[in-house]
Amino acid sequence: MLVQKLQYGMSLIKTNSIPNNHLLIQIPTTAFRCGFSTSSAVNNANVKAIPATGERLGIRRNARFSELNDADIDMFRAILSENSATAVLTDAADVASFNEDWTRKYRGSSRVVLKPKTAQQVSQILKYANSRSLAVTTQGGNTGLVGGSVPVFDEIVLSTSNMNKILNFDEMAGILTAQAGCILESLDVWLAEKGYIMPLDLGAKGTCQIGGNVATNAGGLRFLRYGSLHGTVLNLEVVKADGTIMNLGQPLRKDNTGYDLKHLFIGSEGTLGVITSISILTPRKPTAVNVAVLALPNFEAVQKTFNLARKSLTEILSAFEFWDAACAKLVHKHITNSRNPFDSSTTPPPFYVLIETSGSSVEHDTEKLSAFLDTVFTESIAIDGVLAESDTQRSQLWAFRESIPEACAKDGKGGNLKYDISVPVAQMYDVVNVLRDRLASRGLYDPIDKAGEIREGSVVGFGHFGDGNLHLNITGANWDTAVDQAVEPFVYEWVQKNHGSISAEHGLGVMKAPYIGYSKSPEAVATMHSIKALFDPKGILNPYKYLSSQ
Amino acid sequence: MLVQKLQYGMSLIKTNSIPNNHLLIQIPTTAFRCGFSTSSAVNNANVKAIPATGERLGIRRNARFSELNDADIDMFRAILSENSATAVLTDAADVASFNEDWTRKYRGSSRVVLKPKTAQQVSQILKYANSRSLAVTTQGGNTGLVGGSVPVFDEIVLSTSNMNKILNFDEMAGILTAQAGCILESLDVWLAEKGYIMPLDLGAKGTCQIGGNVATNAGGLRFLRYGSLHGTVLNLEVVKADGTIMNLGQPLRKDNTGYDLKHLFIGSEGTLGVITSISILTPRKPTAVNVAVLALPNFEAVQKTFNLARKSLTEILSAFEFWDAACAKLVHKHITNSRNPFDSSTTPPPFYVLIETSGSSVEHDTEKLSAFLDTVFTESIAIDGVLAESDTQRSQLWAFRESIPEACAKDGKGGNLKYDISVPVAQMYDVVNVLRDRLASRGLYDPIDKAGEIREGSVVGFGHFGDGNLHLNITGANWDTAVDQAVEPFVYEWVQKNHGSISAEHGLGVMKAPYIGYSKSPEAVATMHSIKALFDPKGILNPYKYLSSQ
Repeated sequence: MLVQKLQYGMSLIKTNSIPNNHLLIQIPTTAFRCGFSTSSAVNNANVKAIPATGERLGIRRNARFSELNDADIDMFRAILSENSATAVLTDAADVASFNEDWTRKYRGSSRVVLKPKTAQQVSQILKYANSRSLAVTTQGGNTGLVGGSVPVFDEIVLSTSNMNKILNFDEMAGILTAQAGCILESLDVWLAEKGYIMPLDLGAKGTCQIGGNVATNAGGLRFLRYGSLHGTVLNLEVVKADGTIMNLGQPLRKDNTGYDLKHLFIGSEGTLGVITSISILTPRKPTAVNVAVLALPNFEAVQKTFNLARKSLTEILSAFEFWDAACAKLVHKHITNSRNPFDSSTTPPPFYVLIETSGSSVEHDTEKLSAFLDTVFTESIAIDGVLAESDTQRSQLWAFRESIPEACAKDGKGGNLKYDISVPVAQMYDVVNVLRDRLASRGLYDPIDKAGEIREGSVVGFGHFGDGNLHLNITGANWDTAVDQAVEPFVYEWVQKNHGSISAEHGLGVMKAPYIGYSKSPEAVATMHSIKALFDPKGILNPYKYLSSQ
Repeated sequence: MLVQKLQYGMSLIKTNSIPNNHLLIQIPTTAFRCGFSTSSAVNNANVKAIPATGERLGIRRNARFSELNDADIDMFRAILSENSATAVLTDAADVASFNEDWTRKYRGSSRVVLKPKTAQQVSQILKYANSRSLAVTTQGGNTGLVGGSVPVFDEIVLSTSNMNKILNFDEMAGILTAQAGCILESLDVWLAEKGYIMPLDLGAKGTCQIGGNVATNAGGLRFLRYGSLHGTVLNLEVVKADGTIMNLGQPLRKDNTGYDLKHLFIGSEGTLGVITSISILTPRKPTAVNVAVLALPNFEAVQKTFNLARKSLTEILSAFEFWDAACAKLVHKHITNSRNPFDSSTTPPPFYVLIETSGSSVEHDTEKLSAFLDTVFTESIAIDGVLAESDTQRSQLWAFRESIPEACAKDGKGGNLKYDISVPVAQMYDVVNVLRDRLASRGLYDPIDKAGEIREGSVVGFGHFGDGNLHLNITGANWDTAVDQAVEPFVYEWVQKNHGSISAEHGLGVMKAPYIGYSKSPEAVATMHSIKALFDPKGILNPYKYLSSQ
């Protein structure tokens, strides 16, 4: 039995109908979550080359940056002479994967990748690069979605991959200090043995690095429970563009001595300095975890269910994800061996929510969750539900949610527009309906049904409901540029009008840099430019990105 | 019965020995917590005048600031003409209480207090003041401990007291937006009716204002559970020194569009701008609250108990406070009708911890707490314990903890040095013992016993154990300046050596401004100065404070 039949008469997944060897969904080796993942495609020589980012977006290389010469390479080899022979990569084949992002939308033409091991080496590299006006892009796991960590032109790639040491763990306080290049999942596994977890979790955890997580202010799946990195990151060591190493504080929970500079670096996407080490507060590992998926008749029911979950699951609620019927259809269509947790023979429910609880008592959490589910069904808020009974089943339910971005990508053979917006929870889904109507009224798509599927493509919505974070995807088999024009800047305008953010978690990168004005006031953007100039007067760090006219 | 007799044979508070009308401790009308409180003393004409801050600390008035003239007052009256007649205070008697802090250590000589109601009015005030080079100190509830919100010389006092409107509450997301002058307790009471609470709680909650809380990055009693304001504050509206109104974002949980400028203002103590409104994430109000106080034989037992609490009370642990025997003695000595929760006839236990749990199920929380207490006693970690059975009893146990700062103040008739330091939890109490030895070895105090009491004074330690935040107090009936010299800068040096912070929550103000170098590197301090210059080029906002050579 894969999915427990609950007591409320909802049993669309009939336990007898699933052979024991047939998984609810085939979990990919590298799980896809929140659209973050890695791809081996960029290393595949047969894959068609992607267009250069600068050319595609009409950006011109800034003439104030010098071009790399052999003397520069020699200098970098000297700085990194104590490291391995692969600390300075210059062969085109070796550099290629650092020039392209995994979504294959962004490509630069860097000639060199540097892999320092220490903050001192980073300092020497930047001091030299700054003196020579060589532009530098810092790259962690290269799992971003907005082209933030790959060069636009010939920027030097400073890879943090070799800065992968755990430096300290204060077991009493649960404070971990690690170098920026530590892989998120490795840290999580290391902590698990000590009874702790990382306060963030992403689909790309097997590849993404904690330095990149902090530089992009990653959100992810534990955000609802453990909050933003602005709350959990306790200290940073950074290197400024001129090579100055700054330890911004201490690994302490409380420190009120001066402006808290580390917050400028959290989410700065490598434009202010290079983050070399991180101290972070790690929560106790929960010993009881439950996952349930509910099918709901409308968006109001999603809101009601969330309200009820916050009220009755309060301290154990750790995730509240949602997706619409169109997402479920795409997963069913594109993901091998996937199965909707609910029987596909009936009318598909318009909405689904995944609810996770994490706590310290199996018995207590089960009681709380049962009482919650009791209310949800006796008050007819939910149509149906499934509750995982084992770790495998929990992974399977999560995998369904996590495979949505991959399904969107596969559906969008012609194109796949991805928006990652933040709006007040009450208005969160409106934009999906508004966009469906807008595209239909322009004759760009003929809706086949009212559940969001459109001929040769879809407009779908899913995301982290509890955080007010909607992932909006528009997919098409045969792309029409009129779709782009109908969607952009309309989506950004809608977000602005509804007091939202055009980027809840993906960041600005090169993709959204021109659009910051939709989320931030001219006064705030002007101040950001001043701060950039303060930390990086020559603008060598991650140019062409983040701030619109940088 | 006031305090429940537990089942483990510990019953130092014998229920029969306390008359029904005899409170465990007399709770002051304004509870004292964490050393923050308000005092009517400053309004009492019979009280001896306190020395002027500038004179006492050897600070000179900066000649670049203009002196206020009648035309300035006329301009301010014009700007605030729509407000009440008391929006511009100039009578010495009216201005007096704004010139002095409640601890009666800091006194300025401002001639005018301005009480705007809107960000627009703040903007007009600052624009004018900046053009005239008039210095301005922003004041909220005036409940700080480091002289941060009272003028040093003749700075204009900009009081936020009349900016006291709740602007919005997103009930689904639990996001409150309020003007800066809202009283913390008023917000908490207002939210309680909707099933929410403020994520912070301070002893001064009846007087302190949310704007001041954010400007000082207040910690307090809910920090362990709900974390720092850097995690819970979602947006700020601020006015820069030149009058520019900046809305720094939106009331959203997630927003990754550019440098997150609000964090510069959190804890900036009024030196970068005036915070005019705040959006903050509010947690659900817990429906089950338990409070227990345990007596412990040594500091190792405090650490063991904390470890166990984190492990077994995980998601419901909401406070873990501690104090030493010397604190308990002072409360017993100075607080009217106070009673140690444990029988004073036995040898006083060296340490006490107050443990609070908050959750959504009385039954579950009681079970968890019972299991925890069971371990604590069966493993002989604790000597004794009391568990509150009602709201009144919970308040009484808290009141004992909260009255420690008041007891210290009363004990320190000659002087009371207060330090608010952050150190790794494992080394947290060492400094108390080190200081006792140091003072004894210099013949400044003869220890009467080993529990910290010293002839005509005490060296005591208490605080927020879970946050690594120690409140260290040295009190004396007849003060010897040699004590000051023995203690300072020794304490700061010890903190620096132990990788701590010289101010965990009180901030820098005028008191600790010269000592920032003990907690922050020269590079970081230099960057702070640059940021200050960026936001406030003329330096009119809260001068003489925060950064050492400002």
